[in-house]
Amino acid sequence: MMPPHDTDPDTPAAAAPETGTDGSAPLPVVRLKPKANARAVRRGFPWIFADELVTDRRTRALAPGTIAWLEDAERKPLARVAVNPNSKIIARVIDREGRGIPDHDWFVARLRRALALREALYDRPFYRLVHAEADGLPGVIIDRFGDIAVFQPNAAWAELLLDPLAEALAEVTGVTTILKNAGGRGRTLEGLDDADAVLAGAAPDAPVPVEMNGATYMADLTGGQKTGLFYDQRENQAFAARFARGHDVLDVFSHVGGFALAALAHGARSALSVDGSAPALELAEAGARASGTADRFETRQGDAFDVLAALGGEGRRFGLVICDPPAFAPAKPALEAGLRAYERVARLAAPLVAPGGTLVLCSCSHAADLAAFQGASLRGIGRAGRRAQLLYTGQAGPDHPLLPQLAETGYLKALVFRL
Amino acid sequence: MMPPHDTDPDTPAAAAPETGTDGSAPLPVVRLKPKANARAVRRGFPWIFADELVTDRRTRALAPGTIAWLEDAERKPLARVAVNPNSKIIARVIDREGRGIPDHDWFVARLRRALALREALYDRPFYRLVHAEADGLPGVIIDRFGDIAVFQPNAAWAELLLDPLAEALAEVTGVTTILKNAGGRGRTLEGLDDADAVLAGAAPDAPVPVEMNGATYMADLTGGQKTGLFYDQRENQAFAARFARGHDVLDVFSHVGGFALAALAHGARSALSVDGSAPALELAEAGARASGTADRFETRQGDAFDVLAALGGEGRRFGLVICDPPAFAPAKPALEAGLRAYERVARLAAPLVAPGGTLVLCSCSHAADLAAFQGASLRGIGRAGRRAQLLYTGQAGPDHPLLPQLAETGYLKALVFRL
Repeated sequence: MMPPHDTDPDTPAAAAPETGTDGSAPLPVVRLKPKANARAVRRGFPWIFADELVTDRRTRALAPGTIAWLEDAERKPLARVAVNPNSKIIARVIDREGRGIPDHDWFVARLRRALALREALYDRPFYRLVHAEADGLPGVIIDRFGDIAVFQPNAAWAELLLDPLAEALAEVTGVTTILKNAGGRGRTLEGLDDADAVLAGAAPDAPVPVEMNGATYMADLTGGQKTGLFYDQRENQAFAARFARGHDVLDVFSHVGGFALAALAHGARSALSVDGSAPALELAEAGARASGTADRFETRQGDAFDVLAALGGEGRRFGLVICDPPAFAPAKPALEAGLRAYERVARLAAPLVAPGGTLVLCSCSHAADLAAFQGASLRGIGRAGRRAQLLYTGQAGPDHPLLPQLAETGYLKALVFRL
Repeated sequence: MMPPHDTDPDTPAAAAPETGTDGSAPLPVVRLKPKANARAVRRGFPWIFADELVTDRRTRALAPGTIAWLEDAERKPLARVAVNPNSKIIARVIDREGRGIPDHDWFVARLRRALALREALYDRPFYRLVHAEADGLPGVIIDRFGDIAVFQPNAAWAELLLDPLAEALAEVTGVTTILKNAGGRGRTLEGLDDADAVLAGAAPDAPVPVEMNGATYMADLTGGQKTGLFYDQRENQAFAARFARGHDVLDVFSHVGGFALAALAHGARSALSVDGSAPALELAEAGARASGTADRFETRQGDAFDVLAALGGEGRRFGLVICDPPAFAPAKPALEAGLRAYERVARLAAPLVAPGGTLVLCSCSHAADLAAFQGASLRGIGRAGRRAQLLYTGQAGPDHPLLPQLAETGYLKALVFRL
């Protein structure tokens, strides 16, 4: 059953009553402009941009996060959407067959599907549980740390429906603590505030140990620095660790020791973590102690470029060097400068790699695609006078699924070179 | 030290004496045309195409596989190359600093470097040992099966230098049997024959067991069918096997059971291998027996498209379906038809995947790039009325390194979807 078509051509976004036979509340109707790509939406593209939607007064007046029915320009029903008149992504597809406002059962079904994938993939409950659009929950990120869930409602609809979503989350996963993290960049674009909250249970008063890749990492989920922990590099850390045995390892932009602790767990002779953040390095050290590898672990706090240059000046050589910087090119205007920064990283890091050693260069920049990032990396390696084999091109782990229609969500790239 | 520049402008390919101070034989000189991209060669591009080289009479008269010095149009030395006037790839870069004709020590050094990478990656001596250009041995493929090496000299220079190369191979690896496989498509393009040979030891008189991904595979390296075994899917087979536990698995274009046996080793409830080749399926069955999983394994011989359609008609459903067909689009003229074939595979396979199940679609077509293959796969899945999450994009394993300058060598694509 589909909602009725609005019959007044001048008020396409009117809150037309829905002919629900189940008594659900009627949903407002919004409509695509004739030029909009209705076919893409039918094929699974999940976003409608502001210039594609008829934005009359009533649509503009919808509260951010309102659930509505989307029709094409011929008034044929397309999808149930969440509307945010304040966002460039003015509507996000929720589903194609649902009725009314998503309720507890609907959230339970989505979360069960997401959980089934992660339980198939991982032995222990530490993973990204929900990866937004690809898991059918647009703009929603949920990371799981055992009994604790860290929940990022990065779209207005999820903020509105926070309570049923959090309840379903507790029911499906059994987590006892749910932390709301409002620090996501997406929230600003949606016009949402940045106020964190504890939605269930009590915030942990100490870093949480996370077992991954044979090591124990310490994740500070609530501290002032909120360093957290990222799951997206797990598979790449495991792959890089295969080259660690017996070697000295350098992990630059190390954060809480992602690559370094995995390398130590896989038999690295030593590992040196470099990061600008002292609290992150303290967590890395705590992780090394918890992993029983602290005797082979060192840290150096400082600007990564400065430390890379200094290590070069000291004539240091490592069998495995990893550089996993923050996004130098998060958006298109920063692309040129970002690619120069990636080239510079490669140029400074390559001389530190022993002959036959391994260099892992990562980018989490949306704006720099794989070809551009690889080009910048190769220019840097070439300017350092080295030649490279490309062994592997890594991506975010499978607990970060992609919606095939949203190619740009494949933001994480890890190039593994042998020099 | 570089070779002298040819001083006769009319004979740029003359066999100019090399000013070697070590008494090595002088090498002929060949020269790029002004329009050729010398910069690309300086940056590591390893091939010179026929229309880029000055092909005077002397160059045309060089025996296929002749080692020569390449100069740019200004007669600056570029690289040591192997010339084959009969090939579209008229010259392949050997190195940039070597002298004379590659000798035993040179081959030993290259092979040691290749071996070091594989020994870092794998516990057991079963891998692709040499992957052509990326391992510094242009056109040379060597697969290792314990004490046996299967050697494909797919470029004329390697055919000419077969003896020192085979001797170095035995010395570096300790293999006792070296089989020459002359069946590679590349040999036809180089004007080489297709005569197999035993270069050392004795050909095995039975299939060779290969332990990989927790299973034992049987590789027929010499039989009439020469089904062999491909290492390139090892990492993708391991990844797919993570979704096998407790599920029924369908492995189409199964060959000797690559995905099916790994899935069984990882707890699949059952696996069905489909292939057109009865001898390949017999080897798969022998592998299942050797792996102790024969009681959960079935095979069905027949045309893959027919069997997919028949299984659909029978209403069969599997938790994991893998389709790893032969190259439908090996070269550009076959691209359109190849993409239609990939779409058809996806359309026939998707209905066989249980809800929430996993579909792995592979392409080893050089001509179909990742975007084109993904597009064809998604069209097929969509036409089957299913929607997909993309969990993972696999590639050939790290014993198949790439030369970054040769993007097209990244031929293997494995898309892991959840439907």
